Amino acid sequence: MKTQIFTLDQIKSSIQIPELMTSIEEGFTLYSQRKVVVPPVGLLEFPEVHGDVHIKYGYIKNDEYYVIKIASNFYENPKIGLISNNGLMLINSQKTGELLGILLDEGYLTNIRTAIAGAIAAKYLAPKVVKKIGIVGTGIQAHLQLEMLKYVTECKDVIVYGRNENSLGKYKNDMETQGFQVITTQNIDKLIKECNLIVTTTPSDEPILFANQIKEGAHITAMGADTKGKQELDPKIIQKADIVVADSIEQCIDHGELSHAFNEKLISRDKIIELGNLIAHTNLQRQNDKQITIADLTGVAVQDIQIAQYVYNKLQKTK
Amino acid sequence: MKTQIFTLDQIKSSIQIPELMTSIEEGFTLYSQRKVVVPPVGLLEFPEVHGDVHIKYGYIKNDEYYVIKIASNFYENPKIGLISNNGLMLINSQKTGELLGILLDEGYLTNIRTAIAGAIAAKYLAPKVVKKIGIVGTGIQAHLQLEMLKYVTECKDVIVYGRNENSLGKYKNDMETQGFQVITTQNIDKLIKECNLIVTTTPSDEPILFANQIKEGAHITAMGADTKGKQELDPKIIQKADIVVADSIEQCIDHGELSHAFNEKLISRDKIIELGNLIAHTNLQRQNDKQITIADLTGVAVQDIQIAQYVYNKLQKTK
Repeated sequence: MKTQIFTLDQIKSSIQIPELMTSIEEGFTLYSQRKVVVPPVGLLEFPEVHGDVHIKYGYIKNDEYYVIKIASNFYENPKIGLISNNGLMLINSQKTGELLGILLDEGYLTNIRTAIAGAIAAKYLAPKVVKKIGIVGTGIQAHLQLEMLKYVTECKDVIVYGRNENSLGKYKNDMETQGFQVITTQNIDKLIKECNLIVTTTPSDEPILFANQIKEGAHITAMGADTKGKQELDPKIIQKADIVVADSIEQCIDHGELSHAFNEKLISRDKIIELGNLIAHTNLQRQNDKQITIADLTGVAVQDIQIAQYVYNKLQKTK
Repeated sequence: MKTQIFTLDQIKSSIQIPELMTSIEEGFTLYSQRKVVVPPVGLLEFPEVHGDVHIKYGYIKNDEYYVIKIASNFYENPKIGLISNNGLMLINSQKTGELLGILLDEGYLTNIRTAIAGAIAAKYLAPKVVKKIGIVGTGIQAHLQLEMLKYVTECKDVIVYGRNENSLGKYKNDMETQGFQVITTQNIDKLIKECNLIVTTTPSDEPILFANQIKEGAHITAMGADTKGKQELDPKIIQKADIVVADSIEQCIDHGELSHAFNEKLISRDKIIELGNLIAHTNLQRQNDKQITIADLTGVAVQDIQIAQYVYNKLQKTK
């Protein structure tokens, strides 16, 4: 058995976004067709240093590999000059269990696959003409979600909302070097009024966007709420929307943005479309420029499976 | 962050059994004192190729590392010339989550830590004078359990029981090169009559040893039953025993050898001593040469934590 070990630099150099996006779309579709085995997530917690470790694992039935991902977040790390997230992915053979590859990605692939899911949601739900892109938040995902939108819309006009002026300034700077024109604001109303493709990326635990603010034709991707208690949208927005999409219905009504509307009975399970089905069926996608559409993304292990397989296969070819 | 990667050869060369045994004893004691965090085991199954993957993970509170172990068994592998078990262990910092070390042990450390637990049980429960050692089974653990007993008893006379003459012959050969005198038998009665330290190591699903056969003063370590349905001992043996020990009471009454006696109400939970408490308290150990004693070993994640930490620390020093 020869286990190949790949470093972050090798991993970064292997990725071509458009083809990786296709592979992740296929993964979502297989997931919604129940062709993916995804056991419950493993969790280790370190309350004293505000740290947690998630172990996600699974496989596509009758495929070549299974994937185990370990991802950690130690939120006090920045205080001692370290990044908070870390991780690796393991590629194994479904036939023999052999460990074929170790991707020492330090959490990078989780960030990328998360941002790509946002671009996929926009691809099928954003209005045909995107006037301005609204980004809520200034963190890693605020950066990466916008970067990935390049591949699905030509719009380069951006309004970013945040609370901290320094972070807003830094975000503007970072993204303008990437070819965007960025206006910063601490007034969420301005963003909602001018943007018809909005991505919320914060770890907020109370609504930032409210139902009476939302304009006809808007699409909102909410990806901040990934555990119980987090919330970025007024639940009435979900009720008001024409199309509501979840990356995993199971997860989103349990601990995603949709859980609040679901618990308050503002939406029923059968009104929610799973992302994999949205991708596969044109008639479920946005039909006109007046519909309000929402996508709730909590992160599904099939994204990890697909990105790990993609990187591993690419690195095999370039050896 | 610099992740160090160690191969099987490096790992093997780092191990000194007596000091590793001490470290695993300490682990059992900490486990029984509820100082170890061990979440539920993760499981991936591949029914078509008779394969399964177990993910065990945890940490000793206020210690330096946490450990994640991945161990696979693909039972059809030998048909294509591969070993069936595989695996690796990951060492991470409890303070920052950083991945410090990868031990590419290919399942070796799991085998060793399992055999060491058997030697620990014998250390505290075997009669003072071991007349002969009885080994039931001829597989990997039949080999390793006997090897590890070197460190706790001077007895070198062995009777091995098995069903297959070739396997018995091979076992005799293997262990005689290690300094044992081995008699093979297909008659379990002979083994029980002559041996007062017995280790059962088979994946049997029905009793091999019966209560009316067991002699005064015998110790039996049963380590074959590690999932529901497996069984090596007549449950009446448990009832007859003066001291009954479990590596984890929780696990043993759920899916170990003791589960059968527990379900048939032949033993109550409060009569079972946990291995970590046996080690810590002299008064719980064997008191004379007439007692019948039993140890049921199902394997506890703290063994993985201790062996991984031990190997990682040793390899740091020898660099």
